[in-house]
Amino acid sequence: MTIEEDRTKNEAAIREVIGGFVKSICAKDLNGVMSVFAPEVVSFDLGPPLQHGGGETFIKRWQELFELYQNPIDYEVRDLNITAGDDLAFSHSLNRISGTMKNGQQTDRWLRWTACYRKINGKWLIVHEQVSVPVDVGNGKAMLDLKP
Amino acid sequence: MTIEEDRTKNEAAIREVIGGFVKSICAKDLNGVMSVFAPEVVSFDLGPPLQHGGGETFIKRWQELFELYQNPIDYEVRDLNITAGDDLAFSHSLNRISGTMKNGQQTDRWLRWTACYRKINGKWLIVHEQVSVPVDVGNGKAMLDLKP
Repeated sequence: MTIEEDRTKNEAAIREVIGGFVKSICAKDLNGVMSVFAPEVVSFDLGPPLQHGGGETFIKRWQELFELYQNPIDYEVRDLNITAGDDLAFSHSLNRISGTMKNGQQTDRWLRWTACYRKINGKWLIVHEQVSVPVDVGNGKAMLDLKP
Repeated sequence: MTIEEDRTKNEAAIREVIGGFVKSICAKDLNGVMSVFAPEVVSFDLGPPLQHGGGETFIKRWQELFELYQNPIDYEVRDLNITAGDDLAFSHSLNRISGTMKNGQQTDRWLRWTACYRKINGKWLIVHEQVSVPVDVGNGKAMLDLKP
């Protein structure tokens, strides 16, 4: 294969990883979500702390997120841009999470998502991610209702 | 060179790009800052909107940031982790920006920074970045005073 064909193949593989990730979130499939992350992932998540690693803490955060929502969660990935090399890749997108919380409240949020991947033993895994919303530094507020 | 030597060389080159970026911020050197970004950069910035591109808008945001501070700005990159391939790379770090605003107020903020790079015509450039602080979804507040 040419380098170009390799890249196209790798981009398609990452698109598939993201597709599986989205499906797993919608279905609250914790194992499915975990399967896209490397054990040593470093996550800059929407909520505090500044950074956290993989393992039990990481699993617990996803569990807690799932527990907030009634079934199913709506999750959409928009403006997805993937750049893939031989064994490194990164992607960025605007991800919409919406649904009904267990307390009855409707939520609809657009998050910025950057994911960085390594191909480890032939499998693309997320080794780093950042998830955020912009903030208004002037009044100290998170801007949770911006739309693309 | 072996692949391993290449990677080490590329990581060192990116460390140098980041070093130049930090120096430029401290000195409020707008051209220096701009020289590390690709013209088509997609930035998920600390402030709104959700995303913006390069060009005039991008330059203006940096200008506005610089204008808020008295000289010099203190800028520090901590917990820097670089992963570099042949012509793609990504880095993540906790970046501290501190100084005295023109209104006399002292600020000291830790930002999460993810940067994604491509080697274009032999030069490493940032094609995507995300800068954020965590938010408290419960009370809608940006967490601007977290420390690593």
